[in-house]
Amino acid sequence: MINVAIVGYGNLGRGVERSLKQNPDMELVGVFTRRSPETVATEGAAAFHMDDLLSKKADIDVCILCGGSATDLPVQTPEITKNFNTIDSFDTHAKIPEHFAKVDQAAKANQTVSIISTGWDPGLFSLNRLYAQSILPTGETNTFWGKGVSQGHSDALRRIAGVADATQYTIPNNEVIENLKAGEKLELTTRDKHFRECFVVLEEGADAEAIKEEIVTMPNYFSDYDTEVNFVSQEELNRDHKAMPHGGTVLHTGTTGEITNQVIEYTLQLESNPEFTASVLVAYARACVRLAKEEQFGAFTVLDIAPKYLSPLDDATLRKELL
Amino acid sequence: MINVAIVGYGNLGRGVERSLKQNPDMELVGVFTRRSPETVATEGAAAFHMDDLLSKKADIDVCILCGGSATDLPVQTPEITKNFNTIDSFDTHAKIPEHFAKVDQAAKANQTVSIISTGWDPGLFSLNRLYAQSILPTGETNTFWGKGVSQGHSDALRRIAGVADATQYTIPNNEVIENLKAGEKLELTTRDKHFRECFVVLEEGADAEAIKEEIVTMPNYFSDYDTEVNFVSQEELNRDHKAMPHGGTVLHTGTTGEITNQVIEYTLQLESNPEFTASVLVAYARACVRLAKEEQFGAFTVLDIAPKYLSPLDDATLRKELL
Repeated sequence: MINVAIVGYGNLGRGVERSLKQNPDMELVGVFTRRSPETVATEGAAAFHMDDLLSKKADIDVCILCGGSATDLPVQTPEITKNFNTIDSFDTHAKIPEHFAKVDQAAKANQTVSIISTGWDPGLFSLNRLYAQSILPTGETNTFWGKGVSQGHSDALRRIAGVADATQYTIPNNEVIENLKAGEKLELTTRDKHFRECFVVLEEGADAEAIKEEIVTMPNYFSDYDTEVNFVSQEELNRDHKAMPHGGTVLHTGTTGEITNQVIEYTLQLESNPEFTASVLVAYARACVRLAKEEQFGAFTVLDIAPKYLSPLDDATLRKELL
Repeated sequence: MINVAIVGYGNLGRGVERSLKQNPDMELVGVFTRRSPETVATEGAAAFHMDDLLSKKADIDVCILCGGSATDLPVQTPEITKNFNTIDSFDTHAKIPEHFAKVDQAAKANQTVSIISTGWDPGLFSLNRLYAQSILPTGETNTFWGKGVSQGHSDALRRIAGVADATQYTIPNNEVIENLKAGEKLELTTRDKHFRECFVVLEEGADAEAIKEEIVTMPNYFSDYDTEVNFVSQEELNRDHKAMPHGGTVLHTGTTGEITNQVIEYTLQLESNPEFTASVLVAYARACVRLAKEEQFGAFTVLDIAPKYLSPLDDATLRKELL
C-alpha cells in the first residue's frame, strides 16, 4: 500500500482525493492545509494543518503538492522534498530549469525522489512531443489547446475595472488541424492557431464598448488573437460557464523517405481539467515511490520515467496484456 | 556516432536505411542478407552476406533486425543478441513472453541489450494503452486499426484457389469511435469495430460468386466482420492498391470523480507502414546503445524505456525545449 499526503486542498487537491479512491494500491493519509483544518470540507479525508506534516513523516510515502506554480510550489517543493518524496505540477515553463535544479539538490542531499511538472502540459503533452520528434525527426510539432477554460485569461478579464466576473475559452482552429493532417505545409502565426471566446459579466454602469475594446487590445493575452466578447448575466455565467473543461492536441506531421507523410496525433478531451491533472499526479506518485525504493534519488520529470513505473501491474503482466 | 547494421532487407530494412539518413547521430555500417549481396539493390548502403556479420562485430553498435515474426525473429533475435545489441519488431502477441525470456537470457549471459517488439503495435500503441490505463484506471481502452492494408488478410485472400492477387483494407468504424468519445458506454463486438474491404484479381475462368462466398465466410479472417469484396483487374490493383498505408487509434474513455468523462486518444495516420515502423526501430536503437553504455544488460520492451533515451538531445535541453 502506498501512503499519500495531499498538500494544499483546492480544485487539484480535491481531484487527487477523488483519484486515490480509484486506485486500490493507494491510501490517503490526509489533507494538509494552511487554513484551519476544521474549515476544510474534504470528501472524507482527514484534514491537518501544514505545521503537522513533518510529525507524520513515518506514515507518508509520498506528498502530492497541489499548490500553485506562481508562489506555492517554488518554495514548497524544494522545502518538502527535504523530508518527503514529492510530486508537483509546476507549469511555469520558463522557470522549469531553475525549479528542477533546486528540487534536485534537495532530493539528492536528503535521499528523496521528486517528480516535477507532471500533469498534461507540461506532462503528457511533453511526452508526446518527445516521442514524436524522436521517431520522425523530419517534421513539425504543433500543440493546440482547447476547447477549454484558461484560468490565466479568465483572471485577466476579471482584473479589468468594470468587470464583475468572466470566463475565457481557448478554442483551437480545427480547420488548421485538418489541413496539417492532410499534409499541407503551413507557416502558422499565433492568430492562425487559436481563437479566444470571452463571457463577461459587467458591473452596474460599466461601459460595455470600452471594456470590449480593452479586452481585444490587451497585449500578451488577447491582442494577437481573434477574440469574441459576449456580455452575459451572472446567472448565465454561473449556469453555463463555471465548469472546467479543457484538452488539446499535440500534432506531429512528419516525412519519411522522400515524400511519405506520417501523422502522429495525441488528443485529450477533458470534462474536468483539475480532476484529470490530479489523476496524472497520482499515477506519477506510484512511480515516485518505486524510484525511492530503488534508491534512485533526485529530481525527475515525466521524460525520465519508464512507462511501466506508472502501472500497478508487474512487468510480466504488462508484456502479456498491454504490449 | 552510433554504428548500425541492418539485418534483412525487405520493405522494413529499406525503411530503416531511409530513416537512418534523417538521423545525423547514426551511421549505417551495411545491410546483411541471406541472399547474394550483389543481388540486393540498396539505396546506397554496402551489402554483405549474413555470414560476415560476426566478423564486423567491432564496427557495429547495434543490429536492427528486419526479418519476419513467423520464422526469422524467433531464431535470429536470441542468436544475434549473443554478440550484438539488437532491436526487433516481433509482433506475434501470444508468443511475446516466450520470446522475451529467450532474448533476455541471451542478453544477460553475454552482456548485451535487446529491445524487442518495437514498432507501433506492439510498440507506440502499447505505450499509450499503458499510460492511459495507469492514469484513468476507471475506464475502457479500445484499439482500432486502419484504414490500412493488412498483410495477413491480403495473404489469406491470395491463398484462395482462383485468386491471382489481392489487397485487403481494414477499416475502423468511425461512428463507433465518435460515440465512444461522446461518452457512450458500448458493448462492442468484433463486427462493430472494423469493416474489411477486399480488392481481388481473379484468375481466368475463376468463379467470382463462389470465391466471394469463400472470402466472407472464412473463419478467423473474415466471418466475424462485414466484408466487402470488389473484383478488379491486375492493372487497377497495381495502380491503386499496392501502397502500404496504415494507422489506427488507441481510444481510452475514462471517468474521474463520479461522472466526469475524460478521453485520451492517440492516432497514427501513416502513408507507409514499413517506413514508419522503421523510424520507431531507429529511435529505439538509440535507446538500446545508451542502455548498453550504462551496462543495463538484458531484454527490454518499449514499456521499460524512459522516453528521454529515444532523443538525441541531452536532458537539460529536453526539459527546456520539450517539457
